[in-house]
Amino acid sequence: MDHFKSYLSFQRLIKINPAQTLALGFLVLIFIGTMLLMLPGATKDRNYLSFIDALFEATSAVCVTGLVVVDTQSTFTLFGQIVLMLLIQIGGLGFMTFGILIALFLGKNIGLKGRMMIQESLNQISLEGMVKLVKFVVGFTFLIEATGAVILSIRWAPDFGFPNSIYYGIFHSVSAFNNAGFDIMGNFNSVTSYVGDATVILTLSSLLIVGGIGYTVILDLIKKKSLRKLALHTKIVLLITFILNITATIFILFLEYNNPGTLGELPLKEKILGAYFHAVVPRTAGFNSLNTADMTLSSQFLTMLLMFIGGGSGGTAGGIKVTTFAVIILAVGTIIRGRDDVEVMGRRIPKELIFRAFSITIYSAFIVLLILFILTITEKGVPLNVLLFEVISAFGTVGMSLGLTPDLSPTGKVLISLMMFIGRVGPLTLAFALAKANKKQAVKHAEERIMIG
Amino acid sequence: MDHFKSYLSFQRLIKINPAQTLALGFLVLIFIGTMLLMLPGATKDRNYLSFIDALFEATSAVCVTGLVVVDTQSTFTLFGQIVLMLLIQIGGLGFMTFGILIALFLGKNIGLKGRMMIQESLNQISLEGMVKLVKFVVGFTFLIEATGAVILSIRWAPDFGFPNSIYYGIFHSVSAFNNAGFDIMGNFNSVTSYVGDATVILTLSSLLIVGGIGYTVILDLIKKKSLRKLALHTKIVLLITFILNITATIFILFLEYNNPGTLGELPLKEKILGAYFHAVVPRTAGFNSLNTADMTLSSQFLTMLLMFIGGGSGGTAGGIKVTTFAVIILAVGTIIRGRDDVEVMGRRIPKELIFRAFSITIYSAFIVLLILFILTITEKGVPLNVLLFEVISAFGTVGMSLGLTPDLSPTGKVLISLMMFIGRVGPLTLAFALAKANKKQAVKHAEERIMIG
Ligand SMILES: [K+]
Ligand SMILES: [K+]
Repeated sequence: MDHFKSYLSFQRLIKINPAQTLALGFLVLIFIGTMLLMLPGATKDRNYLSFIDALFEATSAVCVTGLVVVDTQSTFTLFGQIVLMLLIQIGGLGFMTFGILIALFLGKNIGLKGRMMIQESLNQISLEGMVKLVKFVVGFTFLIEATGAVILSIRWAPDFGFPNSIYYGIFHSVSAFNNAGFDIMGNFNSVTSYVGDATVILTLSSLLIVGGIGYTVILDLIKKKSLRKLALHTKIVLLITFILNITATIFILFLEYNNPGTLGELPLKEKILGAYFHAVVPRTAGFNSLNTADMTLSSQFLTMLLMFIGGGSGGTAGGIKVTTFAVIILAVGTIIRGRDDVEVMGRRIPKELIFRAFSITIYSAFIVLLILFILTITEKGVPLNVLLFEVISAFGTVGMSLGLTPDLSPTGKVLISLMMFIGRVGPLTLAFALAKANKKQAVKHAEERIMIG
Repeated sequence: MDHFKSYLSFQRLIKINPAQTLALGFLVLIFIGTMLLMLPGATKDRNYLSFIDALFEATSAVCVTGLVVVDTQSTFTLFGQIVLMLLIQIGGLGFMTFGILIALFLGKNIGLKGRMMIQESLNQISLEGMVKLVKFVVGFTFLIEATGAVILSIRWAPDFGFPNSIYYGIFHSVSAFNNAGFDIMGNFNSVTSYVGDATVILTLSSLLIVGGIGYTVILDLIKKKSLRKLALHTKIVLLITFILNITATIFILFLEYNNPGTLGELPLKEKILGAYFHAVVPRTAGFNSLNTADMTLSSQFLTMLLMFIGGGSGGTAGGIKVTTFAVIILAVGTIIRGRDDVEVMGRRIPKELIFRAFSITIYSAFIVLLILFILTITEKGVPLNVLLFEVISAFGTVGMSLGLTPDLSPTGKVLISLMMFIGRVGPLTLAFALAKANKKQAVKHAEERIMIG
């Protein structure tokens, strides 16, 4: 409580907003992580990491992305791996708790209606309530991670031996819940050995869905007894998550059914599990049970779209978020039908939120295209789909790759690190800036119209 | 005058708006063109076009795109070529004059402020004024086209012989002013033989810039004596056109300077001419003096961005339009700085226009990505950059290609035809729908907020 109050005074003193505090905190964490990963004890066989490689790995962990320039299992010692796991856990939790702080500030800035929304979804706006909420988020995180770790430890006992399997269970449970996508399976393999293993696939996918859906949804589901009474936000996130996962599973199944590099050789049950996992992980876990590079261009394209969309707000997921996606789809549909108000499930979406959704989408597309353009210059000879996949993966903090990451030029590594950082804190900062923008400016210029479209 | 009034009564009778009338008119024109191009007399050596090929060619001409599945010069007889030229001319003029009608309707729908804008930029809103304006547009078109034809006919007299060069002059002048990109140079060569020829390059580029900048800008420039008094619309279009052309020239020069497939072997003067032409044509002429397929991926990417942006509203150009591009850039900049009003050159851009710009951009990106996704399924084995280039070229009615067009599958040809049509009438229809949306809906649902980003 007192700590939080003194944080607020400190913040007023140096005049930075919560989003900026988050960005700064992440930078410090990345710097510490970089130093730790460069220590001789962090890597096996004196394979000391270069500064750029260590920076890349630390950024990838803190931003829960999972893109890697070296194979985690064969490169890092136990110490190095635990550093990565801690960076993931602090990065994931830090993002969620700062999300709460930012939601609180948004509530203050957007007036009574905004506060009512936050009261409805969080049922708290007082500082006391917020501290309680942070405690809930932390407790919930550890509870779910522990559950996942137990299931995975038992499943993996025959494969990695006991008690070694406990470490594997904890590492992958933390990585999955935080949507980090780091694995210690070796040889850049991710979980491809378990493509048809229902226990591993369903445990990991449940962890990453729960982690990526956002704490407001979790809270709302816990507090409300009836489905009807759920907040609009909860309903939209659940519905879109469901639709995207089902649709993507069907598409991947259809597109890869006969592809010998992916689903082609598998029995039907494993085909379905493989398609389902690949439909779920791009938003934004980043594990893979199929070799993404061997997929059809259609599936790679679909994966890129899913990576760009990402998960729910206020969770461990990245991307523009499912609500943003839903609102722009609804808005464009409304416009084409020549109507004015964007309506869904008997409710009207406020104009300012539609504007915010458009802004975040366009800003995200800008950043992705800008970094992509620079990479076409620095990474000569790499096909467009491989480059675009890498950039969107970094932006959405997904961590899937068509295999480019270890082969990136030093400039490329710095650019992708930057993209991971921007992808993580950018949209949130933007949402914050947008909420602040409601304060009127002092001088009003005269309006003048121009022709659009 | 009377014709126009009876059109208005007819329109009220069947309840379609001008944008829908335009779409219908284009469909009828495409159908007539398809039939004409399938006639035995339209093609040389009994190379009768299939229905799909004729449909593709007619759509490409009416929508002034310039993508071709067969080489225009070697496939079509003089009759066939003249059919194409007429389709281009009617398509181009039809679009411009309907643009005026739509601007008039927009003016009626968007209230007093909107009318003042149209009065300012067109200086007319009465029916009499509109008929005068249409006459001006038609007269101006023929004047500029005639000028271009004379210069090109003289230049080409040694190459194609007199009076044959007159035909070449007229065809390419009409094609350039209407930003159609069709050529009769043979062998899919476009104007690559004239990469270093200042007369050809500067004449064609001047024609396509004037045609693509929009009649409101032309009118404003003719009527206003001083640069200071120009409408905001005019200033923005001129400034962005200038910036895009200069920046793109420098980038292309830099990116292709040593590329032996494009600028590498040319003397400096021709390098600059080649870079300049390639910077200008993607918005949205579609001629090419360099082989686009041999360009670096960076240049191809830059070309795609330019094709997506397109030219000015109310001209022969396609794409989202330079004003839309300017407004979203300004809006995102404003948002990131945490400010509220989008301001430029001492004026404020109305909120509703910003919304319109966002909508058109997102809608366009949707359509491009949707068609692209289907093409990854129908055109197996084609790299992403080649497919994306083709789709954006069709959407922006540009007509450049990395060589895919003649090799498209029948489904692919239909999809690209559809894309050319949507790219041509879609954004305008959308702008119209958006303007109508200002009418309030009868039933208002309760507002409910959700978390965005
Ligand atoms: K990830
Ligand atoms: K064109």
